[in-house]
Amino acid sequence: MPADDIGEKLLDVALRHPIKLIANALGVPPRFMVDRAKAAGVPVAALVGAKEHAVKQVNAGVDVLIAQGTEAGGHCGEVTTMVLVPEVVEAVRPIREVPVLAAGGIVTGRQMAAAIALGAAGVWTGSVWLTTEEAETAPYTVRKMLAATSRDTVRSAGRTGKPSRQLRSAWTDAWERPGNPGALPMPLQSVVSERALRYVDAQAEKGHPGARELATYWVGQGVGLINRVRPARDVVYEMAQDYAAAAERIADSLGG
Amino acid sequence: MPADDIGEKLLDVALRHPIKLIANALGVPPRFMVDRAKAAGVPVAALVGAKEHAVKQVNAGVDVLIAQGTEAGGHCGEVTTMVLVPEVVEAVRPIREVPVLAAGGIVTGRQMAAAIALGAAGVWTGSVWLTTEEAETAPYTVRKMLAATSRDTVRSAGRTGKPSRQLRSAWTDAWERPGNPGALPMPLQSVVSERALRYVDAQAEKGHPGARELATYWVGQGVGLINRVRPARDVVYEMAQDYAAAAERIADSLGG
Repeated sequence: MPADDIGEKLLDVALRHPIKLIANALGVPPRFMVDRAKAAGVPVAALVGAKEHAVKQVNAGVDVLIAQGTEAGGHCGEVTTMVLVPEVVEAVRPIREVPVLAAGGIVTGRQMAAAIALGAAGVWTGSVWLTTEEAETAPYTVRKMLAATSRDTVRSAGRTGKPSRQLRSAWTDAWERPGNPGALPMPLQSVVSERALRYVDAQAEKGHPGARELATYWVGQGVGLINRVRPARDVVYEMAQDYAAAAERIADSLGG
Repeated sequence: MPADDIGEKLLDVALRHPIKLIANALGVPPRFMVDRAKAAGVPVAALVGAKEHAVKQVNAGVDVLIAQGTEAGGHCGEVTTMVLVPEVVEAVRPIREVPVLAAGGIVTGRQMAAAIALGAAGVWTGSVWLTTEEAETAPYTVRKMLAATSRDTVRSAGRTGKPSRQLRSAWTDAWERPGNPGALPMPLQSVVSERALRYVDAQAEKGHPGARELATYWVGQGVGLINRVRPARDVVYEMAQDYAAAAERIADSLGG
């Protein structure tokens, strides 16, 4: 089935539910998606890693932009959140008023405050939830994430065919090594990797040493700031406290 | 002359002047530098790109840390400013109270406010001054910088032998191409590059098309936010205004 036909059928299913947002990544959404979402009163969001992409998305009619820096887990570009957010905010301002959410590396309240300082209307988080009690992340991978520093991730095409950030492991090392066969184009590389990595997860859980070295999952550089498993509720509570403390630092810096 | 002897002679010269700071990069400063600076009442700062390096520097006795993200111009690591600053602040807190300055991508007041939100005591800037009226940057390179977006820099070993971020050009492309001869170890690669690049600058200024393609200089991703030449005074004034506006956004976000 052509990709657009699959997309329309998935949209049929989605719109039968009381959804609040359609978020789209890796390119401008097809016209029918924007039109049908608007007709249903559902806003459309788009993830972007470069200001040029942000401008294209706004011109295609999206309602919310997510400016995702290179430190993000999953597919990302090369520009960091600190630079990308103000660059995107300034690039879209002359076109139309569109809220920009900051993404990439954000796992704490102080980083959320930083995002607001940069001109974002809010933030978009991912990695911070992967190690919560409620997460469905493979248990051995959670252990690796808790031990990881911010330098233990890598942006590699070896999982999906396009560059995506993930935990560095024997798997990512092999795909980054000179002389590797080269990743297949999307979506074929995922056919190579996903079933194999599910099997790796299962074997790692049983204690297989090779599988433990191979085990990996998408995660951003913010993994370096995450050191223990917590309930999602506690994460949210601590974010709010940390945000307030950061706001106080800024207020104090003005000298009263 | 061994490197330490050269370092001591340079320190002799520096300490004969009323200097306010000694800032050190690329590794822990030699013992004599910390000792003599302390004896002279001059604080010692260190640039770091990873929390492990920050811990080593604090244990070696430095007084100020500069946590420099991968978006920075010049030598840098792989961790972004958004993640590195809180990671370094948390890593050194249990050891000793050391102010941490944020560096990497910071060219506006809103980014300075973001840095304070992240826990930095201040910021350290570089790229933003390269396109001011007062700068001594090669004129043709200034034109390239004003036209550049944040995606027009590259972290390459082809200039000094260690990875440093610079404006992407035919020079950096050649050093990044597969099959390049490989950069020489520091400081030998600079012997290859610096004289040649000074000649390139002179020829680019005279209009040589090949030289214009080769011309490059160190600059961070923040170059994407710089679009015109201004006096340094105006840059500072605008930073203060932009910082205040960002502080107001944060205060407003608390809803009263």
